Amino acid sequence: MEIKAKIGIRIKELREIKNLSQKDLSYSSDLDRSYIASVENGKRNISIVNIEKIAKALDVTLKDFFNNGKFDNNSASS
Amino acid sequence: MEIKAKIGIRIKELREIKNLSQKDLSYSSDLDRSYIASVENGKRNISIVNIEKIAKALDVTLKDFFNNGKFDNNSASS
Repeated sequence: MEIKAKIGIRIKELREIKNLSQKDLSYSSDLDRSYIASVENGKRNISIVNIEKIAKALDVTLKDFFNNGKFDNNSASS
Repeated sequence: MEIKAKIGIRIKELREIKNLSQKDLSYSSDLDRSYIASVENGKRNISIVNIEKIAKALDVTLKDFFNNGKFDNNSASS
């Protein structure tokens, strides 16, 4: 799976664990809802500054964001 | 410290552990040496696709790349 898709799935799963809507996450991260949607769909090559904004809005550290099996191998290419 | 600076320091420390020059890392990641230098200096808002390229070139997973005290708090703003 591409890294862009993995990031999107990770954001969506954390958002749903927190019971937040895309609109809620948009508000708390100060990013457009349509941008959040396209990131979750794996369509954006998101920057580290925006990953950090989203992680903060989801109340996880970057360490915890990436502490997940999806990010634990280098076999899938971007 | 800004996230851009943290990323740069992390890349540099991993590169030095592996005894690679910026030129070596440039070659193995297929990114310009001048780009690698500016990322290490905290001047670039690097994308996830390029972080993955650099992590692969450094032979670490993204999980391991972010498994570091620098990424373990949300107190410092980007």
